[in-house]
Amino acid sequence: MSSNAPFGSCSSTHETEEGTVFAPKFDGNGLITAVTTDARTGELLMVAWMNAEALARTIETGEAWYWSRSRNELWHKGDTSGQIQTVVELRTDCDQDTVWLKVEVAGDGGCCHVGYRSCFYRRVPQGKPATLEPTGERKLSASVQK
Amino acid sequence: MSSNAPFGSCSSTHETEEGTVFAPKFDGNGLITAVTTDARTGELLMVAWMNAEALARTIETGEAWYWSRSRNELWHKGDTSGQIQTVVELRTDCDQDTVWLKVEVAGDGGCCHVGYRSCFYRRVPQGKPATLEPTGERKLSASVQK
Repeated sequence: MSSNAPFGSCSSTHETEEGTVFAPKFDGNGLITAVTTDARTGELLMVAWMNAEALARTIETGEAWYWSRSRNELWHKGDTSGQIQTVVELRTDCDQDTVWLKVEVAGDGGCCHVGYRSCFYRRVPQGKPATLEPTGERKLSASVQK
Repeated sequence: MSSNAPFGSCSSTHETEEGTVFAPKFDGNGLITAVTTDARTGELLMVAWMNAEALARTIETGEAWYWSRSRNELWHKGDTSGQIQTVVELRTDCDQDTVWLKVEVAGDGGCCHVGYRSCFYRRVPQGKPATLEPTGERKLSASVQK
């Protein structure tokens, strides 16, 4: 049984990049980056972190679990807000240090704790490194979600 | 002049989340997560890292610069491969610890050093945490790109 259970292990860069074994690389804090997009529109909704347990639960249950760095706890997204994320597809990248979740969002369809659908509601104009401007997206709700 | 120059500084969570000052949060290694999608198709191409200089150059030049953790150097994406990424829009998220680049890719339109358009060419099937399966994407090239 692999010491990386329930995940697999790779013994070479070639196997990591071209193989069929999922051997996610967690960082020094035991976390992996998770990028979440809307399965229907492709919109980037959020970027968060998973530890091994969150990733294993996500794969097992088909719903998104993360690791909350601010609360230092496992986080079943939508548990309190109703914004459950059902995973339509889970991918990893060439070096297996990131996962990509394509999800369908329940509840009001939102994702961001500030009240927007996506966490990415502001842009940085070219040539203005200290400036943000709104993208015109509107809040679904004024209340903080998690 | 801000000590965070050329970026701005925020003095509260409210300002970070709802304000118009870009004050990117770099981690303990001086890096911020960068998520890059295809501006036309919305496809997730890659997830990489930027240090302050890479982010400043990206905003100034309108082309994507990253920090290569494996080579420990600034990385003007496409410099050797021709796969230059022109930034159509740059966004940040609620807590300003991630940036999202929507790009147009030059050269052969690829992005991944393994030879695929996107680094995310394998999926993890639900309930099978040690398994990857191909998504059916084909290599643009058999040669390694950077």
